[in-house]
Amino acid sequence: MTGSTVTEILAQHQGGNGSPTSTAARVADAIAARGDDGTWITPVPRDELLAAAAAVERMPGARTLPLYGVPFGVKDSIDVAGYPTTLACPDYAYHATRTAPAVQRLLDAGALFVGKTNLDQFATGLNGTRTPYPVPRSVFGGDLISGGSSSGSALAVALGQVPFCVATDTAGSGRVPAALNGIVGWKPSRGLISTVGLVPACKSLDCLTLMAHTVEDLDLVAEVIMAIDHEDPWTRARGGRFSGGPIRLGLPAPRELEFFGDEAMRAAHLGARDTLPGKGFTCVDTTLAPFLAAGALLYQGPWVAERLVEFDEFLTERPDSILPVIREILDSGRRFDAVDVFRAQQRLQELRAEVARMWDEVDAIVVPTIGTTFTVPEVLADPIATNTVLGHYTHFGNLLDLTAIAVPAGTTRDGRPVSLMIFGPALADDVVLAAAARLLDEPRSAATLHPLDQVVLQERR
Amino acid sequence: MTGSTVTEILAQHQGGNGSPTSTAARVADAIAARGDDGTWITPVPRDELLAAAAAVERMPGARTLPLYGVPFGVKDSIDVAGYPTTLACPDYAYHATRTAPAVQRLLDAGALFVGKTNLDQFATGLNGTRTPYPVPRSVFGGDLISGGSSSGSALAVALGQVPFCVATDTAGSGRVPAALNGIVGWKPSRGLISTVGLVPACKSLDCLTLMAHTVEDLDLVAEVIMAIDHEDPWTRARGGRFSGGPIRLGLPAPRELEFFGDEAMRAAHLGARDTLPGKGFTCVDTTLAPFLAAGALLYQGPWVAERLVEFDEFLTERPDSILPVIREILDSGRRFDAVDVFRAQQRLQELRAEVARMWDEVDAIVVPTIGTTFTVPEVLADPIATNTVLGHYTHFGNLLDLTAIAVPAGTTRDGRPVSLMIFGPALADDVVLAAAARLLDEPRSAATLHPLDQVVLQERR
Repeated sequence: MTGSTVTEILAQHQGGNGSPTSTAARVADAIAARGDDGTWITPVPRDELLAAAAAVERMPGARTLPLYGVPFGVKDSIDVAGYPTTLACPDYAYHATRTAPAVQRLLDAGALFVGKTNLDQFATGLNGTRTPYPVPRSVFGGDLISGGSSSGSALAVALGQVPFCVATDTAGSGRVPAALNGIVGWKPSRGLISTVGLVPACKSLDCLTLMAHTVEDLDLVAEVIMAIDHEDPWTRARGGRFSGGPIRLGLPAPRELEFFGDEAMRAAHLGARDTLPGKGFTCVDTTLAPFLAAGALLYQGPWVAERLVEFDEFLTERPDSILPVIREILDSGRRFDAVDVFRAQQRLQELRAEVARMWDEVDAIVVPTIGTTFTVPEVLADPIATNTVLGHYTHFGNLLDLTAIAVPAGTTRDGRPVSLMIFGPALADDVVLAAAARLLDEPRSAATLHPLDQVVLQERR
Repeated sequence: MTGSTVTEILAQHQGGNGSPTSTAARVADAIAARGDDGTWITPVPRDELLAAAAAVERMPGARTLPLYGVPFGVKDSIDVAGYPTTLACPDYAYHATRTAPAVQRLLDAGALFVGKTNLDQFATGLNGTRTPYPVPRSVFGGDLISGGSSSGSALAVALGQVPFCVATDTAGSGRVPAALNGIVGWKPSRGLISTVGLVPACKSLDCLTLMAHTVEDLDLVAEVIMAIDHEDPWTRARGGRFSGGPIRLGLPAPRELEFFGDEAMRAAHLGARDTLPGKGFTCVDTTLAPFLAAGALLYQGPWVAERLVEFDEFLTERPDSILPVIREILDSGRRFDAVDVFRAQQRLQELRAEVARMWDEVDAIVVPTIGTTFTVPEVLADPIATNTVLGHYTHFGNLLDLTAIAVPAGTTRDGRPVSLMIFGPALADDVVLAAAARLLDEPRSAATLHPLDQVVLQERR
């Protein structure tokens, strides 16, 4: 089923040209064929998956359900009742008794839960090697890392096992693995998808994200998964719909772009940029300076300590249950005091204000999602430095309350994945999605929206 | 000149029935008549004040200036070029070389700077006794505290020396002294008045505030002082104008109100509440629970450490230059680590979300500004506990990003000041001002607004 999208599977199921149970069987076969390759931590056993698919077929009005029988994976930091939530730390794992509301919305829409996917432990990392389970590799081969922390989620989609996954992104965890596996990874604005039932990394920054092959698929899933959830203190409603017309894309000067010596990546990125004016974009010079300053603040600053709100007790009581590199990172949060936090947050506010004014000039900005790639041995040889490189263009996104999407853009001349990241201000999600669709030459218009959503939009006006 | 308002002075000056120089002379006389009573730290010397008034008279189009010759005081934590900024700490004091932009806007509008007013040291306190200068007393006598930290600002207005003052409010510093001196004290939404040139207390919470006798005066000054200032990272534009009609006022159940055993204050407050239905308000039952929880978070939580962003170095190098009670408070910030901050901010976000939903039911909420009063000896005998009592209804305002106004409401049966506080969500400033005007039986309508502002409002719609 490689290449099958949400749209295609849905058409098959709704048209009777295929069924959830037959799809479930194909998914189970595809997963089994790969063996224990580090994509899944807890796949739903074949018989249970088939039973679940049969149950979907018996749901009232099944064929009219917006995600009727569409299989999907869930990053193993998000609760699904009846399955362990491990965070890639077996000693931390617990048995979830309540499904995260965001996932529940998918199930209620007829989607078929296939299993829990691998991740960098505690969702801490951007490379995909920080797991006690098998270390996954990018679908591009060459021993390339999968990227992380949502490593398994990206692979499950890229391998064609499921057409979409629900992952997370706190500093790039949804976008980096999407980039390394040639798929679309969207970090919506904070609060559009409920984070209830997610074990927090940095709770004030965490976002649930979606991975898929097309923007059309993201739209279909977003219509279902996005909702106000009063249990989530950061919940908020979607912004307005993109009304069409030219999109002003900010492009940083090439000298501002860092490829860490990867000239093939530089050439591929600049080549991809050159196609933008032909795709309905108005290109505008812009600067990355305040974004990179915010990224440095995240990387060098006290936000790592926020992870200890969740993990401090476990770190204290079970240090040997944590991978050494993760333990080192968590420990580093202890060196920051309260004054450090307030000082950094004051600086962040300055950068936020600077960035806010930039949106008068551009609707979104385009950068590389990753400046270079690494192999698994390269990361294992220098786990902290390589990870920092991977986050160069993603670290600032959540701190600055942006929406961002990683979009595949071919390969380097030596066959490695290239990804463009389009980011915009909070609640400009629809502009960023529209821009991604144009990049991918996908048709997309307001007319394709769910009728119910159109009504909601009218009420909002 | 007791009782003179901005409106009255402006009418005199613009009508030629009085002049800025004659007003300046009266102000200088009034200040001199009180002697060194702790109201002013640095009053402008009489000859300089008269010269400044004469200069105002020579300004182009002087009589058309919106604050032509209107005298005002500035809290001594805000820079005015040519004068020391002391923060009530002589060893910290420095000579300001640039006037705070907010104050500069008043000067440009023809207002007459009269001097720098006393405050609790480092703007840390709500009682007015924490100063190395003479300790001011409330205009209500009986050795009552002035309230703080904007002690001198409230007195200068209440004594009729100046019709308005520019003060600050981080946890109640503008509202509490207004309450104790029977005047109006308005803490606008964060960011409406630039805080550039203010020595920060807690930079993320600090607001410049206005004190006056009437809402009409606040409106006149607000039109001048409020502006976007890109130097202030928290800057934002005013919200919409109140369109008239009933205002839904939330009233907490009497059992939720704390008067700390002050039955006379309880009776006075409940009596004042009883008049609300007759004044154009629709009264709705509401709860204070999330507000008080946020207040406790401020009082017991790590925000005190934010003061160290500004004062850590001075505290380390010159501890003996700081009043013992202030030193103790600042020192207490050092016991919080980064995790404490993130944990408290996560909790605050929950409370913010809870409060946000309450505004569907009510436009504003009414509480006592202060639950009781204290004398100077009472505060000196127990400086921390009495201060906490004073902040019971104000501590939460800045943390929850509210707008709030303290409105005089007569006296207790034993002659102490009673004040109602009306608070609403961020950017609901005009609703809160309209409610205050109704409480004071002042006429106020959108038609009284500055014509230019009306245009801006139309553009915003």
